Amino acid sequence: MHVLVTGAAGMLGRKLVARLVGDGSLGEAAVEHLTLTDVVAPTAPDGFAGTVDLVAADLAADGVADRLVAGRPDVVFHLAAVVSGQAETDLDLGYRVNLDGTRALLDAVRTSHETEGRTPRLVLTSSIAVYGAPLPLPIPEDFHQTPLTSYGTQKAIGELLLADWTRRGFCDGVGVRLPTVCIRPGAPNAAASGFFSSILREPLVGQEAVLPVPETVRHWFASPRSAVDFLVRAATLDTALVGPRRTLSMPGLSATVGEQLEALRRVAGERAVRLVRHEPDPAVMRIVETWAGALDASRAEGLGFRAETSFDEIIRAHVEDELGGVLPG
Amino acid sequence: MHVLVTGAAGMLGRKLVARLVGDGSLGEAAVEHLTLTDVVAPTAPDGFAGTVDLVAADLAADGVADRLVAGRPDVVFHLAAVVSGQAETDLDLGYRVNLDGTRALLDAVRTSHETEGRTPRLVLTSSIAVYGAPLPLPIPEDFHQTPLTSYGTQKAIGELLLADWTRRGFCDGVGVRLPTVCIRPGAPNAAASGFFSSILREPLVGQEAVLPVPETVRHWFASPRSAVDFLVRAATLDTALVGPRRTLSMPGLSATVGEQLEALRRVAGERAVRLVRHEPDPAVMRIVETWAGALDASRAEGLGFRAETSFDEIIRAHVEDELGGVLPG
Repeated sequence: MHVLVTGAAGMLGRKLVARLVGDGSLGEAAVEHLTLTDVVAPTAPDGFAGTVDLVAADLAADGVADRLVAGRPDVVFHLAAVVSGQAETDLDLGYRVNLDGTRALLDAVRTSHETEGRTPRLVLTSSIAVYGAPLPLPIPEDFHQTPLTSYGTQKAIGELLLADWTRRGFCDGVGVRLPTVCIRPGAPNAAASGFFSSILREPLVGQEAVLPVPETVRHWFASPRSAVDFLVRAATLDTALVGPRRTLSMPGLSATVGEQLEALRRVAGERAVRLVRHEPDPAVMRIVETWAGALDASRAEGLGFRAETSFDEIIRAHVEDELGGVLPG
Repeated sequence: MHVLVTGAAGMLGRKLVARLVGDGSLGEAAVEHLTLTDVVAPTAPDGFAGTVDLVAADLAADGVADRLVAGRPDVVFHLAAVVSGQAETDLDLGYRVNLDGTRALLDAVRTSHETEGRTPRLVLTSSIAVYGAPLPLPIPEDFHQTPLTSYGTQKAIGELLLADWTRRGFCDGVGVRLPTVCIRPGAPNAAASGFFSSILREPLVGQEAVLPVPETVRHWFASPRSAVDFLVRAATLDTALVGPRRTLSMPGLSATVGEQLEALRRVAGERAVRLVRHEPDPAVMRIVETWAGALDASRAEGLGFRAETSFDEIIRAHVEDELGGVLPG
């Protein structure tokens, strides 16, 4: 089996590739060949027995997507994206990567279908940002998409295109509407949701973090480990069970910032919680208050998707996966 | 005031231009200049005191939208579209006109905003085709958009882009989600919904028409006259009342084919109804049964939008507007 991953140098891309290499297979089939692409060169995964192509390229540039899909992937994970904060500040870049890049990939898949009869499984990442306030709690899956960011707009368009391409038979698409991934490892990215991770990640290693919103703010979360699980399940799912509504709201944990901090206290003690500085930022608050507090993910749950059920679990997953299972000091 | 109309050679475009010329104004402002564009040259309206530019061009082609918007329109009616049936059979053309053309127009509006500070009112036509079965009756305005045609996909994307551009301040957008326009005058177009008009239009002038679906099929209608009303109202509305959800489900009349034929009987007699030949077509039925039977248009109604309340009214509007007020024979 040949697996193509776009956005392979990103946090989720690297974790997905590590998982594929660790499992050695995807569903029933052995993973024999990986094509990993991103705007910067992805690194080759350790310990992979198959062959790997590493491609540093702009998916939206002429011919790039066609060349990638000419390698005849059986499964395509389309993770390449400009994140919410950056898509808001750099309108052109956001539309180029998140819309034009996705269209280029879909057009290449169509060409491959029409010329070679290929119908790859295409897993597309979407986001809770497709929903815009005022929002019900939880948001039903059949709630309309009126995003209040350009990122959410681009993701909603991706969902629509994926459904149309699948209906046309060019690919076998599954969209996964991801919760905010928390705890994101490593350095903060340009996502406006970054503080949800940093208020846990930094204190866990003895560093200060800033909380720009009140503790009452409620949001929708899943660990990186769960997010990778969602992707793998979306790639191996029996899509006859999905029907024409191809994007699924993923399960998650609905929690307030206060509940995050209580979990931090239980796992790492009062000293860790004291490292969180409350510095209310009205600008951040205005963005965050338009976000989803919880989604009704019962359709995905019925298809076997599972997320964490407590923030203690999410924190422990981070300690295991990122800190070698040990809390410093 | 300068008004730009795309798709100005189409049925709705011509009726809108005739209305603007007849009124001489749009809201409080006199219409002094019209730019009318379409892929074929629109005809100049009769009796217009202002100046008119007629532009035959492909909106998606390089530079066309920029040249049109460089004329600094105060109001843009974006009606240009490939209709549902054709967008389904010619995928490339549908995406080119309905998606690339719309983006080109929006990009030109953005450029004009950024270079000249212009913020035109932009009225975009959308469609009940943005909703896909299974559908509630009526469809709430906050129901998700999971279209089952490429046309519906392209219209849903247009709604998303319009909202993002408006939120960014590049234009003052209002989308109108039109019911099926009935009775369409003139020759049938490539819309799959064409029979809803032909089963009335042809018998009214003594000609046969074919009905491919059972009389129990329910659908959502407004007359061409109401559709033009919607556009004019959307162009003059106080958009402070609309909020960030910029596309409104337009009011309409929910009626079955049987109710259409009863109205035909009342207006034109049994002889007219006998001209309708029942020729069930499972292919047409499969498309039509995925369509909306009724929309909840209460938000638009609260803003003053009104449609017909009986099919007798719709038929009489056609007789007045298209047949000189007189039934032949």
